[in-house]
Amino acid sequence: MSKENGEGKFAQKWVSYRPEIKVLDVTIRDGGLMNNHHFSDEVVRGVYDACVQGGIDYMEFGYKGSKKIFSSPEHGPWKFCDEADVRRIVGDNDTSLKLSVMADAERTDYKEDILPADQSVFDMIRVATYIHQIPVALDMVKDAHDKGYETTVNVMAASTVGERELDGALELLASSEVDCIYLVDSFGSFYSEHVHFLMQKYLKFAGARGKTVGIHAHNNQQLAYANTIEAAIKGANLLDSSMAGLGRGAGNCQTELLLGFLHNPRYRLRPVLNCIQEHIEPMRQELRWGFDLPYMITGLLNQHPRAAMDFKSEEGGGDLVKFFDSLVSSE
Amino acid sequence: MSKENGEGKFAQKWVSYRPEIKVLDVTIRDGGLMNNHHFSDEVVRGVYDACVQGGIDYMEFGYKGSKKIFSSPEHGPWKFCDEADVRRIVGDNDTSLKLSVMADAERTDYKEDILPADQSVFDMIRVATYIHQIPVALDMVKDAHDKGYETTVNVMAASTVGERELDGALELLASSEVDCIYLVDSFGSFYSEHVHFLMQKYLKFAGARGKTVGIHAHNNQQLAYANTIEAAIKGANLLDSSMAGLGRGAGNCQTELLLGFLHNPRYRLRPVLNCIQEHIEPMRQELRWGFDLPYMITGLLNQHPRAAMDFKSEEGGGDLVKFFDSLVSSE
Repeated sequence: MSKENGEGKFAQKWVSYRPEIKVLDVTIRDGGLMNNHHFSDEVVRGVYDACVQGGIDYMEFGYKGSKKIFSSPEHGPWKFCDEADVRRIVGDNDTSLKLSVMADAERTDYKEDILPADQSVFDMIRVATYIHQIPVALDMVKDAHDKGYETTVNVMAASTVGERELDGALELLASSEVDCIYLVDSFGSFYSEHVHFLMQKYLKFAGARGKTVGIHAHNNQQLAYANTIEAAIKGANLLDSSMAGLGRGAGNCQTELLLGFLHNPRYRLRPVLNCIQEHIEPMRQELRWGFDLPYMITGLLNQHPRAAMDFKSEEGGGDLVKFFDSLVSSE
Repeated sequence: MSKENGEGKFAQKWVSYRPEIKVLDVTIRDGGLMNNHHFSDEVVRGVYDACVQGGIDYMEFGYKGSKKIFSSPEHGPWKFCDEADVRRIVGDNDTSLKLSVMADAERTDYKEDILPADQSVFDMIRVATYIHQIPVALDMVKDAHDKGYETTVNVMAASTVGERELDGALELLASSEVDCIYLVDSFGSFYSEHVHFLMQKYLKFAGARGKTVGIHAHNNQQLAYANTIEAAIKGANLLDSSMAGLGRGAGNCQTELLLGFLHNPRYRLRPVLNCIQEHIEPMRQELRWGFDLPYMITGLLNQHPRAAMDFKSEEGGGDLVKFFDSLVSSE
């Protein structure tokens, strides 16, 4: 792939790769939204091993959920990502794979629950925030940065944020300690033209302060992979993906597709395929993630996928046309 | 959507549409490759009704297969598309929907089997050709054009054609009677950068002679819809799609996704969703089309999907990693 299409250099760019691009596998973290983070150790270890063998750059295990807000065992271990739980899988993680964990603004006791980096198995803290939580997110970033972590901020539901608010948020984030700012298509409603436009905007703010930009796409309109490619071509250097697309609702950009595109020799497709076959696909009947028409409809309408998730959980499946009518008429 | 991204006019273009873009539904034609063209009249009528109600521009019924080469009832009626069979569904097709039929180079008795247009229910003949059959295709185009039809030429497997051969073919086609030249990604191996590059090339040859360009994409790498969007943005005006993506192997660009993108008020999503629910999805267990990892692997390797189709037809499903190994080692 290439940064930009120049007809003359097309072939040369296409057979090469951009070494600064990194892949962050969110299989267990985003997939945990489909089973309340109740993955077995065997599955988590399978994904971890595949990430290591596949040359993936980062793997995300789950959330640092507040134990004051969320209770166990209603929520599985990957809602909290206690150091002991992660180390049961990875030991001291003596590999080239870096580990990340997500911290939701206002739902994480970050000062207490996130250890100094030199005592933690994690390398990166990713702060997830809605636009109205930016001040909290900034404090979380500073806390994580000061503790020695790499940091990202993921501004969720960017497709619903007004342009001036977004510019203001990006200006604040660009002035913060954060290393990477993420474009997040929570509702899977972006087309390539949105991605191009917003990636230019994010890069303008981030690049001016020496920060990188990431992309997290959802597959509601079957564009998660395509939009991730487009973001990479425009300059995104941190790409979220998941094995077999496992993730909330329509799921994510598929790691196995992305590796094929990137052409970086450090990546290996075979262990990822093996993990999908051994560990991920056997969960499909129960978890039921992935592209489907109810998600397409919420994506098209730029709505949260929860209505589609409810529809899909109905016994025997509901009436798709009625579902379409109900969403259109409730707009 | 827009022709090109200009940041200033982004929003205006995005909420508008390009009226010259037409959609050609290939559900029954490409889907027929999964059941030897044995669709029931009820299914064909369901798709026809949905195309009419959905404002689709063209619907393709199947092939004009040679009865000297192909026999009935091994092949169903939509392999031959006899006028009487089509009229049983559409009467005289007194609607705004135009009807097309595909004629394969060297597998069609076109001089005998294609009636003059004024005696036919069809409006358009689409000639499908491999690069080595261009002279036959040109004669077929002339025959159809002289009989009064709209015509297209679909140069199949463009991803395997050398650049000089392709340029030569495009020069010949641009000088012919054909109305539209199709970029066809038979193996589903293109990325957006290929589509951009090739669409520019096709438009250069076709545009110089006042012809239009079409796109026919396959979903092996889950990019059929994304690549169709990219082709449209670059200037393709005839877009192939199918309901629920029904088509050979990984299937096609999904009509229901495409209508959402195009924003042309003539299109209606609801009848298409209804048809998918009533007629298309009930066939999925038997026909088993659509994106799946074996197709991803053949797409990635720019190979015909037949190996993946064989793999998927194995009882109980085969070993994906062994399949990957076998294709990589046979390269």
